[in-house]
Amino acid sequence: MDITAGKKRPAEELEGEQPPVKRSAQYIMREPSIFNIKPVDDVIKYIADFIGKHCHLQNVEIEAKFGLFIDKKTYKRMNINALTETIIPQELVRNYRFESNMALEQHRHFNKMLNEMVTKTRAKDYKGERIQYKHTNEIDRFYAIPNSNSKWRVTIDQQGKIVPNGIIEKERIADLNIHSPNQPLDFRISVNVEHPRPKPTCDFMYERVKDRISYQHGGISFDLTQVKSTTSNEPDLRHELELEMSDSTLLAVERMKYNKKEQSQYTQMIEVFVNNIRLLGRSALKQ
Amino acid sequence: MDITAGKKRPAEELEGEQPPVKRSAQYIMREPSIFNIKPVDDVIKYIADFIGKHCHLQNVEIEAKFGLFIDKKTYKRMNINALTETIIPQELVRNYRFESNMALEQHRHFNKMLNEMVTKTRAKDYKGERIQYKHTNEIDRFYAIPNSNSKWRVTIDQQGKIVPNGIIEKERIADLNIHSPNQPLDFRISVNVEHPRPKPTCDFMYERVKDRISYQHGGISFDLTQVKSTTSNEPDLRHELELEMSDSTLLAVERMKYNKKEQSQYTQMIEVFVNNIRLLGRSALKQ
Repeated sequence: MDITAGKKRPAEELEGEQPPVKRSAQYIMREPSIFNIKPVDDVIKYIADFIGKHCHLQNVEIEAKFGLFIDKKTYKRMNINALTETIIPQELVRNYRFESNMALEQHRHFNKMLNEMVTKTRAKDYKGERIQYKHTNEIDRFYAIPNSNSKWRVTIDQQGKIVPNGIIEKERIADLNIHSPNQPLDFRISVNVEHPRPKPTCDFMYERVKDRISYQHGGISFDLTQVKSTTSNEPDLRHELELEMSDSTLLAVERMKYNKKEQSQYTQMIEVFVNNIRLLGRSALKQ
Repeated sequence: MDITAGKKRPAEELEGEQPPVKRSAQYIMREPSIFNIKPVDDVIKYIADFIGKHCHLQNVEIEAKFGLFIDKKTYKRMNINALTETIIPQELVRNYRFESNMALEQHRHFNKMLNEMVTKTRAKDYKGERIQYKHTNEIDRFYAIPNSNSKWRVTIDQQGKIVPNGIIEKERIADLNIHSPNQPLDFRISVNVEHPRPKPTCDFMYERVKDRISYQHGGISFDLTQVKSTTSNEPDLRHELELEMSDSTLLAVERMKYNKKEQSQYTQMIEVFVNNIRLLGRSALKQ
């Protein structure tokens, strides 16, 4: 399960969280509010509305990437004096670029944490949902389609075979950029459409080698990837952590129910997505 | 239970929230995250740390007041292009003043909502915590203590009797100012110490007449107050909604456990406090 070499750093505890403990008799279980309901926070509400606008699209991909917002002038991490997690307003976004990357040690630390969770959920007496994972080595090849502005991507496995649904043209739909001043990493939520395409007949421009471990839990795919690029525009090696919502069709169905004010899992699905982003962000190694 | 006269406006539904419903068999109850824990959001964490710094003080009062941050230059509500609930950084605070006030209609609407919850929790078969309430008419008299900078407050009831613990000198310890751009009202969390004082011997400077309904639920006092002031510096009539944590001693004990990483209700107590603030803020009538 280890995609990084070298000596590992010790795992840090998740900060500010308390694992479920056996409650003593003195523990008062309070109702969540005078209305006996629990509100979702503003950021989750905003994310839910953002994703809700796009999740009905065919072949939609909804993912969160960890990284840093870098000030284009200072080349340093964004600093807007925010005290808590902040959705970056559109008028500010242009001053920053998002680097979907992290230090090798941070990547390795996530790898270790997630592996430990796999081990934990594989125990014979474990009652909860077990984490599935798979390790893949794939190559993305990018093609400039003649007489068009299109770029297509073909993904092949180690045997050189095109993987299922492996030829696509990616269309960027929208980004939501979120700065986490109290955490070592920011994140971006992206909505893309992956249009299926036929096999291109021209030669590819460049390729990316992807060494990935993909963990599956709670309807989310947690993808830890080392990406080697053959273009000179990008760093030689990138370390990515992406969370993708696995079932956008279910999400769209639930959103529709939500819009019709029917019983719906939509908000819960978004909450779980954001819970995972926040917990991983908080447990990231400080650099 | 009605402290306002005149025709009432219809209650609005709480926005973005869903009351607990009976789940069908198809409903997938997901784990809150791959770590099977649920993080508190950044704002709650910040508030918890803020209150945690002060809750051990003797005679401490921890309360949230609803109102608006008013730009001192434009006399309009704060607008900092925030997309979600935002803790106002110290360096910005001086440009705004906080008005602990709301429109009569908003106050009346809260009164109606809370009364409906009282009725609901009084039903014979109601399983949850019942809401207690009391209606009081009191007068605060303010005294400038000779040869000192102190101002003391004496609270008397309608019979002219000083209420229990009714003579205090209030010391402001700290404020946390929170702007809620998506809600009709902002809020401020204040920490004060109420030093007990003997009966002053001088004459009072001015007085405030307080007509209050106080609802008790989940360790929180929800105080809806109409305040009439006899000074010309303040508006004739103010409509306030304040939430006060009833048991600061328990809070301090739980915070101590939390600091020692023992099992603690501290975070839960703060969460319930903030849940209530958020739900009330969201259900405020738009002006």
